[in-house]
Amino acid sequence: MHVESLRVTYRLDVEPAAAAARAEEVAREQTVEVPRSVVRDAFVEHHVLGRVEQLVPGPDGSSLATIAFPVAATALDPAQLLNVLFGMTSLHADATCVDAEFPESLRAALQGPRFGLEGLRKLLGVHERALTCTAVKPLGQSPQALAQLLKSFARAGIDVIKDDQGLADHPFCPFEARVRACLDAARQVADETGHHAVYVPHLSGTPDAVDRQLGIAEACGARAVMASPMLIGLPGFWELCRRRAALPVFAHPTLGGAQRFAHDLLFGSLFRLFGADAVIFVGYSGRFDIPREVCRSLAARLRRPWGTVLPALPVPGGGIQLENAAEIVSFYGNDVMLLAGGSLQLEEGAVEQRSRAFVAAVRDASARNFESKNS
Amino acid sequence: MHVESLRVTYRLDVEPAAAAARAEEVAREQTVEVPRSVVRDAFVEHHVLGRVEQLVPGPDGSSLATIAFPVAATALDPAQLLNVLFGMTSLHADATCVDAEFPESLRAALQGPRFGLEGLRKLLGVHERALTCTAVKPLGQSPQALAQLLKSFARAGIDVIKDDQGLADHPFCPFEARVRACLDAARQVADETGHHAVYVPHLSGTPDAVDRQLGIAEACGARAVMASPMLIGLPGFWELCRRRAALPVFAHPTLGGAQRFAHDLLFGSLFRLFGADAVIFVGYSGRFDIPREVCRSLAARLRRPWGTVLPALPVPGGGIQLENAAEIVSFYGNDVMLLAGGSLQLEEGAVEQRSRAFVAAVRDASARNFESKNS
Repeated sequence: MHVESLRVTYRLDVEPAAAAARAEEVAREQTVEVPRSVVRDAFVEHHVLGRVEQLVPGPDGSSLATIAFPVAATALDPAQLLNVLFGMTSLHADATCVDAEFPESLRAALQGPRFGLEGLRKLLGVHERALTCTAVKPLGQSPQALAQLLKSFARAGIDVIKDDQGLADHPFCPFEARVRACLDAARQVADETGHHAVYVPHLSGTPDAVDRQLGIAEACGARAVMASPMLIGLPGFWELCRRRAALPVFAHPTLGGAQRFAHDLLFGSLFRLFGADAVIFVGYSGRFDIPREVCRSLAARLRRPWGTVLPALPVPGGGIQLENAAEIVSFYGNDVMLLAGGSLQLEEGAVEQRSRAFVAAVRDASARNFESKNS
Repeated sequence: MHVESLRVTYRLDVEPAAAAARAEEVAREQTVEVPRSVVRDAFVEHHVLGRVEQLVPGPDGSSLATIAFPVAATALDPAQLLNVLFGMTSLHADATCVDAEFPESLRAALQGPRFGLEGLRKLLGVHERALTCTAVKPLGQSPQALAQLLKSFARAGIDVIKDDQGLADHPFCPFEARVRACLDAARQVADETGHHAVYVPHLSGTPDAVDRQLGIAEACGARAVMASPMLIGLPGFWELCRRRAALPVFAHPTLGGAQRFAHDLLFGSLFRLFGADAVIFVGYSGRFDIPREVCRSLAARLRRPWGTVLPALPVPGGGIQLENAAEIVSFYGNDVMLLAGGSLQLEEGAVEQRSRAFVAAVRDASARNFESKNS
């Protein structure tokens, strides 16, 4: 009888001689969580218990153990999936969850993005070139001040202007007032210039607060929203994407570091599987210093064919400057959205001018990508 | 003017000469997230931007930076609090969030446990000695099999019998059938023996699923429930505790490791602040090997006076054996609940007998604690 498997790879920082026994422990810890001798039931053994499939040497003397978990152990549920992936083993300092293969039944259950990369391109009306994004910030400004800033970005032709992830429902900048002011500002610039930038409000708080904010955003005419899966919880993020929002959802990476989940697994595979249409991540360029090969893998995971799960839009950020925008477009190709942050605001009074230069750099680099692809 | 502060301590793994500048970066990263020169507004500077208050040498050549964030930056919101604590800085590999002081306004807003340590003692009718706990498991057993196992534990006099955190809403063990079978089993043993063990179902899934499961548990007569804050998300856990459940809530630590949040901060302070009445954690004894001083600090944080926030019950687990139960009671004192897992099931056919020995060991050690306190 065929039992579909969720395959998970762990890096185990133990002596090579101890790795096989440690891998067996992980296979139990993530499922039955009892000593082997307590597993006396054939159903438990075949349909629940993890099985060590492979053990190979990893970097720095570690071992890479691949464990096949019967997919039934996950109950095809967003929270229980996380539990099987890394629940109790996360509490062991010697283990890192570095990769996973999600079988078709799990992908069909979680479904992934509803709009994805192509849906976002349609929304923006931009089909070839790389896309641009920035954020209204800093936290502490009034809705009116943020709306003014948004106008400069929109006039410069930036595609997407999102809330900073630090903007919650603060008394000095309430969610509803901010969303109204920013959407109005985007509409005014559209009337003026014909370019209707997509403003993306950040939904944050408890499940009830996120629902309430989504209702306000939709009622006010927002065309996309953002949430931070690691703040609100991945299962709540999934419900937002697949059961609540009628709009595309951007995922923000805040609090997503330091999980001993590999970056490309967490942001590239899990965020997509849980329904993000666009995934913001911190890239190799700038203050986070993520290795290029991790960024390449992360972007590839977001865009690769994956059964019925739509591709999601990679949105690198975390230190994009005017000076490196062109190189970043050449690195990721045109199916990317560049998120520039504070660097657009570095010169007082020159926000629109710097934003125009950013937009132009991305357009030019996209055209070069396009030419080299077609030459 | 007095601005109330959230004080957070980060361990920074950088050269000592670079620590002051790195701490300033963290203070910005967690709030305004723009270069210093972009902060041009007096309100932002005084009411939002973090301020480095202290920088002292830490272990292994690291530095410990304490940053005071104006509490207004948190919006007194569960999700935004996490964002200010460790959001973007979690994505930097050189920083660990090791401690935090939560000001009175934040504690009054989040409120913490509704029942806490004393409420649980009242529920259980046990006022002096240390408490006992185990779990029905392994995952893969039917509701009937788990209910049978529960009977052995209950007959042996164990106070609390919880679901294993791996028990979700699986087709082979549906939530409702399991809860009904286990509550019935506990009632039958109560009729038989007079000891009515508290069965604690595990609520898990998306916010909607958790709400639905809570409704079932309450309708079936459960007297406490459990959830895993890091699976369902801390803000959803807070809403469960403070806005939904009429019952005490146990917090399970699964997926809570490896966050580069210190264990005592996450399990000792945050889980309590977010409303857990009882906090399960993995302790020094057994397979997780958490240092004793971390366990001592964690338990002290759960039980210490903390303004209006009730003390929560510490529940060490993760490898408690018959052999070490007495030593653990002497380590933590009597305001503790010992969670023994698979070790009670090690000998087939001897579950009740091993459970009785566990209960007796905890009672005896509690009496010795009590005597030595009063002698």
